[in-house]
Amino acid sequence: MLAEIITIGDEILIGQIIDTNSAYISKELNKIGVKVYQITSIQDDRTHILEAFRDAKKHADLVIVTGGLGPTKDDITKQTFCDFFEDILVENQNVVENVKQLFKKYQLDKPLPANFQQAMVPSRATILTNLHGTAPGMWMEKDEVVFVSLPGVPYEMKHLLQEEVLPRVINRFSRPFIYHKTLLTYGLGESMIAERIVDWENNLPENIKLAYLPSLGRVRLRLSSKGKDEKLLQEDIDSRIDVLSEMLSDIAVGYEDETSIVGRIAHILNQKNQTLSLAESCTGGSIVEQITTEEGASSFFLGSIIPYKTELKTKILGVPSSLIEKYSVVSIEVAESMAVNCCKLFNTDFAIATTGIAGPTKGDGKDEVGTVCIAIATPRGVVSEKYSFGNDRFRVIEKATNKAFEMLLKEISKN
Amino acid sequence: MLAEIITIGDEILIGQIIDTNSAYISKELNKIGVKVYQITSIQDDRTHILEAFRDAKKHADLVIVTGGLGPTKDDITKQTFCDFFEDILVENQNVVENVKQLFKKYQLDKPLPANFQQAMVPSRATILTNLHGTAPGMWMEKDEVVFVSLPGVPYEMKHLLQEEVLPRVINRFSRPFIYHKTLLTYGLGESMIAERIVDWENNLPENIKLAYLPSLGRVRLRLSSKGKDEKLLQEDIDSRIDVLSEMLSDIAVGYEDETSIVGRIAHILNQKNQTLSLAESCTGGSIVEQITTEEGASSFFLGSIIPYKTELKTKILGVPSSLIEKYSVVSIEVAESMAVNCCKLFNTDFAIATTGIAGPTKGDGKDEVGTVCIAIATPRGVVSEKYSFGNDRFRVIEKATNKAFEMLLKEISKN
Repeated sequence: MLAEIITIGDEILIGQIIDTNSAYISKELNKIGVKVYQITSIQDDRTHILEAFRDAKKHADLVIVTGGLGPTKDDITKQTFCDFFEDILVENQNVVENVKQLFKKYQLDKPLPANFQQAMVPSRATILTNLHGTAPGMWMEKDEVVFVSLPGVPYEMKHLLQEEVLPRVINRFSRPFIYHKTLLTYGLGESMIAERIVDWENNLPENIKLAYLPSLGRVRLRLSSKGKDEKLLQEDIDSRIDVLSEMLSDIAVGYEDETSIVGRIAHILNQKNQTLSLAESCTGGSIVEQITTEEGASSFFLGSIIPYKTELKTKILGVPSSLIEKYSVVSIEVAESMAVNCCKLFNTDFAIATTGIAGPTKGDGKDEVGTVCIAIATPRGVVSEKYSFGNDRFRVIEKATNKAFEMLLKEISKN
Repeated sequence: MLAEIITIGDEILIGQIIDTNSAYISKELNKIGVKVYQITSIQDDRTHILEAFRDAKKHADLVIVTGGLGPTKDDITKQTFCDFFEDILVENQNVVENVKQLFKKYQLDKPLPANFQQAMVPSRATILTNLHGTAPGMWMEKDEVVFVSLPGVPYEMKHLLQEEVLPRVINRFSRPFIYHKTLLTYGLGESMIAERIVDWENNLPENIKLAYLPSLGRVRLRLSSKGKDEKLLQEDIDSRIDVLSEMLSDIAVGYEDETSIVGRIAHILNQKNQTLSLAESCTGGSIVEQITTEEGASSFFLGSIIPYKTELKTKILGVPSSLIEKYSVVSIEVAESMAVNCCKLFNTDFAIATTGIAGPTKGDGKDEVGTVCIAIATPRGVVSEKYSFGNDRFRVIEKATNKAFEMLLKEISKN
């Protein structure tokens, strides 16, 4: 059982937006055992859309198409579906009602004729009601291949996928189980890891695939397998990856599964009923942003201070100015003082503090661009490290953020 | 002149990562007048890669391939290139030297045999030296079609694209000029806008395309054109979009061009030599994160406080607890007090304050999930608004962030 995803929209091909829809759809299909064979992004162009449909039909049992369903002139997906399926557009009363309801619910002006254009749908399509927008989803079949058309607005697409598409896919197709498990490692390059596990890797059976996913000081090792017996599949992968984790115990920090490092931090702090605050200087909100997008953050995360200017470290956080003068603002000593005072200010068990030079200019410090000091205050005292993260601003912020989470996870995992 | 982008990697097709490389490459190609015809994401599979190469060759003059160049077993792009070009892998001494230099520079252990595998490249390929990683880029031609192979690590890909690929593309191909201009509007749906500008849109010439890009309360209207005369092209689009902006003057907030709303805020504050601080409660760092990723933020942005728990609004920001009791924590009054006190604490000209319920639970307030109050403190006083942003956590945070920037931009633009 293979699927293909086609995203339609010139804005993707000129790089004006990043296509996040396909990653979401791939992930959700994967969970229910549907393998995605290819993702294709194409223009709002009739000939090109038809060509992509024909190509997809050759490989896939299920083709999910997003985009091009708006009420304006540049949206041509629906008409092109009619051409492909040799069908015609007819008015659907349920969609007419839905449009009226939506305008009423959101207290908008009276719908325009263009809004009711959304109710013109291919006559043989099964309509998937969109409760969050005027463009309906559509489910069509041709020679045993299912085509699904969804709006490109991520919020609407996600609801339709979850509530209308996935349940129908589960009913319509028999699928194998697909199982992945990913080991997170820090601090060693992929070739070094490959060298260490060469015998283990060569002994993997045909149906199990290992992938190396390197990024900014981390390598994720993903084992994948598919088959009919879910339990057997899981046991096999679980036992193999446990062996791998043992072999790499000095660099392995845990399994990724569905949970991000922030998710694991949230889980542990909630479980232990402990709290966290932040004093972010050079990371400038990158840490807090990742924490607060985690649902349930408010149960363990009390607050954050971002003293971007040096004098605020003294004024608000109470870091002695003598300390800054003696050791420089980017120093282990200042980071530690920030972390400890942050715990006091917010009355938390743990605090992360960062101070450094993200670049491109050197700012208040005397240190090189890329120098970052990170401290973690804990109920047992404070730990800290000084790093050099290179001279690319984004990379410095991202690396420092990752490293801070890694240090915090280590501390909160201790008994 | 058409290009196609092929990204290789199972991690994309199972939704483990979002493919940001193609958006970056598309944007950069677009800038130099190269139209991207299609973006295709495929698996690390020889047959599939060869098929994608053959398909791309039919349409495109330039095919940019990313991924599959690592030193480990799952990386097969290089060998597949050899199959496609009927070539063989040979050792390249420059790459051998580069690998040695990189290991020396980053003070790593001695390179392993696997690292020197990176020096095995197709014999007829032009090698593009990668100063930031061991995998070189490659430039190959077949029947007048150029294939470029780049590593999938975004940082390495970007450097190679900028320093090695784009200059070669500019030399090799004659390209038309492509010009886009995007008008940002807030507060009206795309069908309502379309209705208002129907005559103007119908009068657009063949070579100018209008696209509607709706997202979370905003609609971006993009005009695109291409041709040989850069000046004529720009003048035509500029004058047409000025007319459009006039017609939509009640909802237009400016042109997008290359500059984000944060970029424009930064520009104005720097120009006026004014400063900003933030007190973010419900947006939890989403605003500060966008500000500090802007280069040069430290010249106008002094700092931020994120009082996630109610009592911190009193303790650190000095919001009177009587005010919170009287009006509730999510109120215009509390937001205004937060903003004004934030200005004082950080000694800035402007401050943004947010307080609200992002959900999924109701937190300390009595208000419905999605209620957000935003206040902007200015040298002239304080302005504020109360909004309802629905019940999806991410959407609430994103909408509140957008709205806050919009309110701030309005205030700092006043004389």
